Amino acid sequence: MNDASREVRLDVGRRARIGLEEAVLCETKTPAQLAHILKQAADSGRSMLLTRLSEPQFQALRAEHAAVLDYHALSQTGIFGAVAPPEGPARIAIVTAGSSDARVAHEATRTLAYAGVACELVCDVGVAGLWRVLEQVDRLAEMDVVIAVAGMDGAMVSVIGGLVPGLVIAVPVSTGYGAARRGETALNSALTSCSPGVVVVNIDNGFGAACAALRAVGYARANRADPVGAAHAR
Amino acid sequence: MNDASREVRLDVGRRARIGLEEAVLCETKTPAQLAHILKQAADSGRSMLLTRLSEPQFQALRAEHAAVLDYHALSQTGIFGAVAPPEGPARIAIVTAGSSDARVAHEATRTLAYAGVACELVCDVGVAGLWRVLEQVDRLAEMDVVIAVAGMDGAMVSVIGGLVPGLVIAVPVSTGYGAARRGETALNSALTSCSPGVVVVNIDNGFGAACAALRAVGYARANRADPVGAAHAR
Amino acid sequence: MNDASREVRLDVGRRARIGLEEAVLCETKTPAQLAHILKQAADSGRSMLLTRLSEPQFQALRAEHAAVLDYHALSQTGIFGAVAPPEGPARIAIVTAGSSDARVAHEATRTLAYAGVACELVCDVGVAGLWRVLEQVDRLAEMDVVIAVAGMDGAMVSVIGGLVPGLVIAVPVSTGYGAARRGETALNSALTSCSPGVVVVNIDNGFGAACAALRAVGYARANRADPVGAAHAR
Amino acid sequence: MNDASREVRLDVGRRARIGLEEAVLCETKTPAQLAHILKQAADSGRSMLLTRLSEPQFQALRAEHAAVLDYHALSQTGIFGAVAPPEGPARIAIVTAGSSDARVAHEATRTLAYAGVACELVCDVGVAGLWRVLEQVDRLAEMDVVIAVAGMDGAMVSVIGGLVPGLVIAVPVSTGYGAARRGETALNSALTSCSPGVVVVNIDNGFGAACAALRAVGYARANRADPVGAAHAR
Amino acid sequence: MNDASREVRLDVGRRARIGLEEAVLCETKTPAQLAHILKQAADSGRSMLLTRLSEPQFQALRAEHAAVLDYHALSQTGIFGAVAPPEGPARIAIVTAGSSDARVAHEATRTLAYAGVACELVCDVGVAGLWRVLEQVDRLAEMDVVIAVAGMDGAMVSVIGGLVPGLVIAVPVSTGYGAARRGETALNSALTSCSPGVVVVNIDNGFGAACAALRAVGYARANRADPVGAAHAR
Amino acid sequence: MNDASREVRLDVGRRARIGLEEAVLCETKTPAQLAHILKQAADSGRSMLLTRLSEPQFQALRAEHAAVLDYHALSQTGIFGAVAPPEGPARIAIVTAGSSDARVAHEATRTLAYAGVACELVCDVGVAGLWRVLEQVDRLAEMDVVIAVAGMDGAMVSVIGGLVPGLVIAVPVSTGYGAARRGETALNSALTSCSPGVVVVNIDNGFGAACAALRAVGYARANRADPVGAAHAR
Amino acid sequence: MNDASREVRLDVGRRARIGLEEAVLCETKTPAQLAHILKQAADSGRSMLLTRLSEPQFQALRAEHAAVLDYHALSQTGIFGAVAPPEGPARIAIVTAGSSDARVAHEATRTLAYAGVACELVCDVGVAGLWRVLEQVDRLAEMDVVIAVAGMDGAMVSVIGGLVPGLVIAVPVSTGYGAARRGETALNSALTSCSPGVVVVNIDNGFGAACAALRAVGYARANRADPVGAAHAR
Amino acid sequence: MNDASREVRLDVGRRARIGLEEAVLCETKTPAQLAHILKQAADSGRSMLLTRLSEPQFQALRAEHAAVLDYHALSQTGIFGAVAPPEGPARIAIVTAGSSDARVAHEATRTLAYAGVACELVCDVGVAGLWRVLEQVDRLAEMDVVIAVAGMDGAMVSVIGGLVPGLVIAVPVSTGYGAARRGETALNSALTSCSPGVVVVNIDNGFGAACAALRAVGYARANRADPVGAAHAR
Repeated sequence: MNDASREVRLDVGRRARIGLEEAVLCETKTPAQLAHILKQAADSGRSMLLTRLSEPQFQALRAEHAAVLDYHALSQTGIFGAVAPPEGPARIAIVTAGSSDARVAHEATRTLAYAGVACELVCDVGVAGLWRVLEQVDRLAEMDVVIAVAGMDGAMVSVIGGLVPGLVIAVPVSTGYGAARRGETALNSALTSCSPGVVVVNIDNGFGAACAALRAVGYARANRADPVGAAHAR
Repeated sequence: MNDASREVRLDVGRRARIGLEEAVLCETKTPAQLAHILKQAADSGRSMLLTRLSEPQFQALRAEHAAVLDYHALSQTGIFGAVAPPEGPARIAIVTAGSSDARVAHEATRTLAYAGVACELVCDVGVAGLWRVLEQVDRLAEMDVVIAVAGMDGAMVSVIGGLVPGLVIAVPVSTGYGAARRGETALNSALTSCSPGVVVVNIDNGFGAACAALRAVGYARANRADPVGAAHAR
Repeated sequence: MNDASREVRLDVGRRARIGLEEAVLCETKTPAQLAHILKQAADSGRSMLLTRLSEPQFQALRAEHAAVLDYHALSQTGIFGAVAPPEGPARIAIVTAGSSDARVAHEATRTLAYAGVACELVCDVGVAGLWRVLEQVDRLAEMDVVIAVAGMDGAMVSVIGGLVPGLVIAVPVSTGYGAARRGETALNSALTSCSPGVVVVNIDNGFGAACAALRAVGYARANRADPVGAAHAR
Repeated sequence: MNDASREVRLDVGRRARIGLEEAVLCETKTPAQLAHILKQAADSGRSMLLTRLSEPQFQALRAEHAAVLDYHALSQTGIFGAVAPPEGPARIAIVTAGSSDARVAHEATRTLAYAGVACELVCDVGVAGLWRVLEQVDRLAEMDVVIAVAGMDGAMVSVIGGLVPGLVIAVPVSTGYGAARRGETALNSALTSCSPGVVVVNIDNGFGAACAALRAVGYARANRADPVGAAHAR
Repeated sequence: MNDASREVRLDVGRRARIGLEEAVLCETKTPAQLAHILKQAADSGRSMLLTRLSEPQFQALRAEHAAVLDYHALSQTGIFGAVAPPEGPARIAIVTAGSSDARVAHEATRTLAYAGVACELVCDVGVAGLWRVLEQVDRLAEMDVVIAVAGMDGAMVSVIGGLVPGLVIAVPVSTGYGAARRGETALNSALTSCSPGVVVVNIDNGFGAACAALRAVGYARANRADPVGAAHAR
Repeated sequence: MNDASREVRLDVGRRARIGLEEAVLCETKTPAQLAHILKQAADSGRSMLLTRLSEPQFQALRAEHAAVLDYHALSQTGIFGAVAPPEGPARIAIVTAGSSDARVAHEATRTLAYAGVACELVCDVGVAGLWRVLEQVDRLAEMDVVIAVAGMDGAMVSVIGGLVPGLVIAVPVSTGYGAARRGETALNSALTSCSPGVVVVNIDNGFGAACAALRAVGYARANRADPVGAAHAR
Repeated sequence: MNDASREVRLDVGRRARIGLEEAVLCETKTPAQLAHILKQAADSGRSMLLTRLSEPQFQALRAEHAAVLDYHALSQTGIFGAVAPPEGPARIAIVTAGSSDARVAHEATRTLAYAGVACELVCDVGVAGLWRVLEQVDRLAEMDVVIAVAGMDGAMVSVIGGLVPGLVIAVPVSTGYGAARRGETALNSALTSCSPGVVVVNIDNGFGAACAALRAVGYARANRADPVGAAHAR
Repeated sequence: MNDASREVRLDVGRRARIGLEEAVLCETKTPAQLAHILKQAADSGRSMLLTRLSEPQFQALRAEHAAVLDYHALSQTGIFGAVAPPEGPARIAIVTAGSSDARVAHEATRTLAYAGVACELVCDVGVAGLWRVLEQVDRLAEMDVVIAVAGMDGAMVSVIGGLVPGLVIAVPVSTGYGAARRGETALNSALTSCSPGVVVVNIDNGFGAACAALRAVGYARANRADPVGAAHAR
């Protein structure tokens, strides 16, 4: 048994337990670990979502897996294996305040695509030009979940939270400089939103927001192996 | 027009827009402002939820409104006016890691009670005695939403997030000392949870967690005045 | 010469130099220092603005100076001596997001009143109920200066900054709990506003915002003793 | 519609609403987004200000737009299209404490140049050699606005604030090391200036300071499309 | 042996080693510990300096030691036993920016008085009224040491550091609010002073600044028991 | 004497005093300093542990010492000279939460290997898949020491602390982004663990954790030169 | 079932699992919760350790339980029920840097007393008077564990860590002001100790340090119910 | 006049005023600014100290000034022009805790060399091997000033402060990782030193420590142009 295989222990029972599969956060994995993980997936015929997969990491994996590894550079995500196209109308919207938020928003769209769940993307509607977001309100108010992606002051989150009845999940973004503090200002702004019931995930965590949306719309409950006793499954 | 009436402008259209009513955060209100607000509510026959209502603030309001102001000391919440009893089985669970988290958890139970929505409360199941939470997993795994209330290391949040498929809303609590940093450690711990799709509200914000749960279970969408065009309502 | 007289050295030439008088920040002054300062003012027939003057501090000064010390409890300001009523239409507006911001907003209104400059106060128009602020936009857009007073997420600041052409001065407020971090979140939010050209003063500093407004509308330049060479005045 | 065009939504009505045009913060834009934005501008015959445009980003755009893109390397600004020369005497001064502050100061001079507004630049007059700034006081005291650009201790801001009656806008700079904390010390120092009415913008934000100056001198109000009802313009 | 006597172990050899006696920081001592310490001093005929001795703590000690305990309320210092009056001209100046800094400045004057070393106190010469400090420069430039006591922006420290050749010791003060961050802004401002060779002690630490001055003027070296081999003394 | 030899003073008596040898933290050493240290070791026939030895640093040393310098790239450790193989059963376990923690865990395994002490390594058993760690509990509960290596929320530390009676040493890891704050969240989480008696070392400090384990299992006491009076040894 | 009984769920199996009993952190418990807990203990004949039990909390419990509740005011600890006297020589030392650290040190001595384990207490040997700690080195070097209790700079921890071979557990203390940052400086100082293998617990956590010592000396392993399979015990 | 000459304004009167010349902090200067400054120095026949001069910056200047620019790579300092050798015995010692502190210590030795003042350098005597510093105490106790250079826990500073009577100037160093927080822990540790009268300069600021030493030993007072009225000199 080599080092990589000893260092990696996939949580193969996760889908059975909670209806969501383990995704691979590539950022701090070694090349050997990544190669080992994809080999495991290929051997067992499983599909897999890879997040924070850098361009060089992707190039290293490509030789072996080009045909089955779909890479999206802006969001640094890879989808390994085939996935089903989404069905039905979108119940989840993803909204960004500025064009710089696109990379995080697309981490969420890709996660939902991997799950086969439809979503709508609305870009660059920050409140400095308030009418951009007001135009979208009727559409957003019909959604079960609105994922609001914003850096800097994060003001768009509160404006949306005061206008729509669905679950609003804020994703703070690490854009900006100085007092933006690498996303902490947007994070704290969302946590103290004057609009009631806004929830928050980690800075730049588009993947987490999408998972939360999958929990909120009931996808995760429906997707677990077995509704009774599943907690003991591995 | 006196000062208090000039300083306060209730968002009367909020329920019509987003299905949630404005609650009154009492902590930083003056006695004159609070009296003015309750008088407005009484005059218009509206009920109202008051949060962070201190014992002395309550005593000051009691003279006028004793019969219709239901006060819960531990959670510092007041419910003004009559509310309907919850119906149907609980789809929302509220779980605490330690007995010190009860005050925050009860802010959430009271908010749900005000909305007439049933919930289950599970107390003191922190992971230092892991079996306490494992005993509850089957029950929690059936819920649409689990509100996880925990201070200090907040480890219970991640354990629950890895065992149930519903939406997990973490409420960090400001208990503890030193490196607990008044709840920031629990907050950051929840934001970086290794379990996918955990969402977070502000420290000690039981009210916000309950509102998010009301959004997630569809209560808010059902409760707005008018599903189409409501965004323009005031 | 007693201790208090040795410890205090008023900047008597300030009005001549920069058109603004020195105000007395009372918070950390001893009773002996405050008494000495007011005695100096009374002896020389000067008026004076006192900020952060607590109720007990006021009571201690009242015995001696009741007739000429006008106290405003909510804003903790005292105006010593007579001041002229404001003239002309208001070119400065002061806007608050919530009723808890009133104490800070009134520190600004009192500072302008002391200077004899008119202003308009618009309260409790935070963006959770967006229509409250949108109703005011036409009026605000005609102002030379809008002082925007807001705690927590401070989102109102960016919304106003995107709708009016005058100078927007944000005053972050230390209300809120947890991630509000005693006003720092509102401060950082204003500093990173997506609306261009918003400026900021210290947390809770209504006095400073009013002084900045007096500089911006040209009051300070008009009020100095001597437009040429005044910098050398003492 | 390609990705970049979907991710970018310019606030074309901004000038009509608030008298200031949207500038393009290039730092976090992708090459595709930048190319799309400039193409839009070229197609519609609009001029445009680009900030934080890195040398490589500029080189990428140059091929297409060399003739009409004026780049200033120290301040990392680009001006796309023709701009009118400034008229009349300078009412705005820009002052730096050290030679390292020049890059930020020039972001402000370029923003004013884009708007066609005159300014004066006074460099390297930090208070360690106090007489450098005292020599300039008479000139600075005649200005409507003084933009004070300083890193490290930011002491120059308070010295100027105590000597001139115009609006003093501090721009903290991220120079220095250790306790300079990437500009936060200068930021906090300006926010707590002992001189009354100093206002502050984000660290290194020369663009924002210039926009605030344009608001303060009435340029923005004069430049909007329509003084009445403009808030509804898009 | 009781608890207090077991918990306290005075460093009786300190004066012999480094020429400075141990002072008693009273803030966190129990009444029993303080009583024990003074009894030890009385029994051995030693004098003693007590810092951060609150009014109630003083009152508790007074019964026993009224005749020989000289208390100064503003600085919260007590001098136990007789001390010699200072001799010769002052080589140390203590300068404050505002009247609120007096309490900290007096902790330094009292420490020097206990050591029998002369000093000069110059109060309330902050740079908002720059001429106040410029008037004092000739006098300050003749001193061996200038202790500069300032809160908030701490700008006075840099101005003095650029005008005098003696050792400049900054004492940041915890006055102010918001961005003053309980003295940290003044601390960081002094650490990043643009004037060369400014040194800093802890926030509010007038005692430490005085001890450093005693080291710098050679008092401590002269005052140790034995210039050779003293390091081994206990 | 060259610069490097003057700048380096090895603590050659450390093993005699405390039973642990000085290791060389290479990160901030110059090439000249490292070369000098290894030459000293070679000349005196001593073995030596090098930590945070980067690949380029290793390459520079390799020319001279290839035969006797055993490098482990993932953990960035070098072992200079021969070491004895470990004897007896493992009394120390090293557990990681994720595959990204392997580099830190291996710094600990290498330190123990250098000391000739056996350990067991258990990888990737974070609590998101709780059953991975529960499977290991019986084995871990028999250990004298469990070193728990975890980043992000650090929840695994508390779960282990509540299940095993040996000393639990947490090593926070700087993986993660945003609210992980480069390991501080995992650090604070471990410091506030709800499980009693968990101890903590610095972020990423696998070396320190191994040293603490060597102290706890009595290795260090047994390894010092002389159990009595050793403190005076140099 | 009343509220308190519902909010409290003691981890009764903890001693069986990990050899340490659950102690009651009283600080944030309500009077009703504390009364309920002691009643449970009395009913089941168990003894119990209470930490951070304030004087008023103790007085409230005293009426019912005076005979069996041993209170120690300085350390705010209560021992409920009988405990066995310690046997054998001390293998654990507890050392403090200053007399202000006594309250934290005694929380550790009381925890060990509750467990029936001997310890030695050495007070007030901070490094400003270095010889105080050097006198104790021979004794400390014979201990299995040294608990080093220190606030402010925490320098004593590193000095001890470089002189003794046993496990050194640092307890940072929240004494001091300004840059002491309520114990964080001592905490960070201990975490970055230049002496190898120092471990750390939370600020002021004397209880945690004692528990860690009980783990390190093997008490916890010996004290669990059943060495095999105990992890499954509840 | 080109840009660089406009951006730079040397404080030519500094030596006359305070006895210390302006040094050039090169880190954030552009190549054009540096070239302009050296040309000014060459033209006027002045010598000059350059700090934080990177290797590439030095190479760029070398072409023009190789003969008269003495570069020291480790400390990143350049001395332009001839300087006199130091005279007399050293009254200033510079002590480092570890070999990584050498770069900062040498910034101080070079600054003193530029001033022609003798000093002694004692390296690598951190307290983990306490006897290394104790060996040096007799020598250090005879110095007027001891500059103590230390990173991480900074414990050496307090040990020295308790053993020598001269002025102790701590220079925190940004070595270390995790809780070392880029030198802030060493900084805070020095500020809260339990030894009385320790003073501190900014992290890594060897230059500032040397300047403070030059002030403390009277060099600066002796070196100014004119002891009376110099404050008005420019």
